[in-house]
Amino acid sequence: MQPRNPDFDATVRASFAKQGMMRLLGAEISALEPGHCTLTAPIRPETSQQHGFAHAGLAWTLGDSAAGYSALSLLAPGEEALTTEMKINLLAPAQGSRLVAEGRVIRPGRRLLVVAADIWAEDTASRRHVATMLGTMFAVTPD
Amino acid sequence: MQPRNPDFDATVRASFAKQGMMRLLGAEISALEPGHCTLTAPIRPETSQQHGFAHAGLAWTLGDSAAGYSALSLLAPGEEALTTEMKINLLAPAQGSRLVAEGRVIRPGRRLLVVAADIWAEDTASRRHVATMLGTMFAVTPD
Amino acid sequence: MQPRNPDFDATVRASFAKQGMMRLLGAEISALEPGHCTLTAPIRPETSQQHGFAHAGLAWTLGDSAAGYSALSLLAPGEEALTTEMKINLLAPAQGSRLVAEGRVIRPGRRLLVVAADIWAEDTASRRHVATMLGTMFAVTPD
Amino acid sequence: MQPRNPDFDATVRASFAKQGMMRLLGAEISALEPGHCTLTAPIRPETSQQHGFAHAGLAWTLGDSAAGYSALSLLAPGEEALTTEMKINLLAPAQGSRLVAEGRVIRPGRRLLVVAADIWAEDTASRRHVATMLGTMFAVTPD
Repeated sequence: MQPRNPDFDATVRASFAKQGMMRLLGAEISALEPGHCTLTAPIRPETSQQHGFAHAGLAWTLGDSAAGYSALSLLAPGEEALTTEMKINLLAPAQGSRLVAEGRVIRPGRRLLVVAADIWAEDTASRRHVATMLGTMFAVTPD
Repeated sequence: MQPRNPDFDATVRASFAKQGMMRLLGAEISALEPGHCTLTAPIRPETSQQHGFAHAGLAWTLGDSAAGYSALSLLAPGEEALTTEMKINLLAPAQGSRLVAEGRVIRPGRRLLVVAADIWAEDTASRRHVATMLGTMFAVTPD
Repeated sequence: MQPRNPDFDATVRASFAKQGMMRLLGAEISALEPGHCTLTAPIRPETSQQHGFAHAGLAWTLGDSAAGYSALSLLAPGEEALTTEMKINLLAPAQGSRLVAEGRVIRPGRRLLVVAADIWAEDTASRRHVATMLGTMFAVTPD
Repeated sequence: MQPRNPDFDATVRASFAKQGMMRLLGAEISALEPGHCTLTAPIRPETSQQHGFAHAGLAWTLGDSAAGYSALSLLAPGEEALTTEMKINLLAPAQGSRLVAEGRVIRPGRRLLVVAADIWAEDTASRRHVATMLGTMFAVTPD
């Protein structure tokens, strides 16, 4: 996909740096190209559910941001991507040392961008598909 | 709705206390009865998105837990409620001092429980509907 | 909710009359006011699934149209409501003589309208909640 | 994926033949292997929306059945796949002579199968991605 913002990389990273939530979760951008964004975050006791696995909220939040930034990478300068709706289907317990969320744009509309994300739980020697997401981003121009 | 677990209140609170994620977000149980659970969490810089509003991940995570505990309150002793899938539609920016998530069971099946949650952003003098959620919990008996 | 189109009733009915699918399913408008639309359709062998109950596709299609027309009733003259995304959770087998779909607007945004629908299966003496839906309509001005 | 039912092909086709809705829509099975099922249906005036394109209900119904039969192909003899929930995101107007729905199983759990479907509108010389779906099937043993 062709970016309309030549500085899409800097735009995404500047937005990411402003998200307190990404810092709280220890998330990092591990890959970024037009229409694609991969984020990773450690699985820690602070983000666990009652059995010590990663809370579904960690997977959703990481996947939502990965999908959102895959959309932002395709927008015009000055536009922003807001989540309109996002669904997650959980596939397996999120056990391991970190989560990896791969977000992508399925349909880059002018106003509405349909996005998806797949979430993997990784350990030193394993990689498991733990969730898949499908949603919609809305492109807005803040005043 | 009639609880099958006479100790549903203690069961829900014990599970809640074990969720590192709920502590990280500063969440508390503010109401609990069979088939209904309300959680609240402060809106803080640590859980913000890039404009200082609450991150959608805070709303989703709080709503998912409120819905999940509304389901757990109806299960038999020893059973647990796992999120199978959960969708959120965002209605307005989550601005204010705290989020309130009201979870409820729409259909209490034997294995599958359809659940919903509504999320409100509250301030001293205002209350705004910021998100609505619809999903499915699966009742399991851990070994 | 306040309609912006004084002829919303005629606008909705004219659009409904043009939908081949509504005729094929035998659907009718049974109630219509700003932000609300109720449709009914018979449960017939032609719209069954493999056990003789109404096919989930009948419930989805009726609910989608009920939700869409609840949105259209709030739009400005000349605008149309397109389904962007729509999720259904099925609650019980759709058994009986007819389905009733009650659509409503949860949040009437300028461009995006969050909508919901509840589907009931009715018989002479019974009424059962068989599905619930949550989705998004997009307001467009056709050229 | 390995089928547990050696007669999965006959099982799927027998179930499909009993669906009045599939007949009403003119649907046919065009491909079937374990974990995958492709259905096609003509785009006709009878299944149109108000602009003459295929109604979203045709896409949803075809995609739901394609996904459901991709799940049924993996179940044990005597089991059935029921749709628990299913979301569709619409990508483009469904214009052309027929719809093709490709269903697949993403995660074949013992009780819950996460499924997806992609819908294409085809004409003599074109093929367009018009919708994508994500949902859950529940494996049951009817009495």
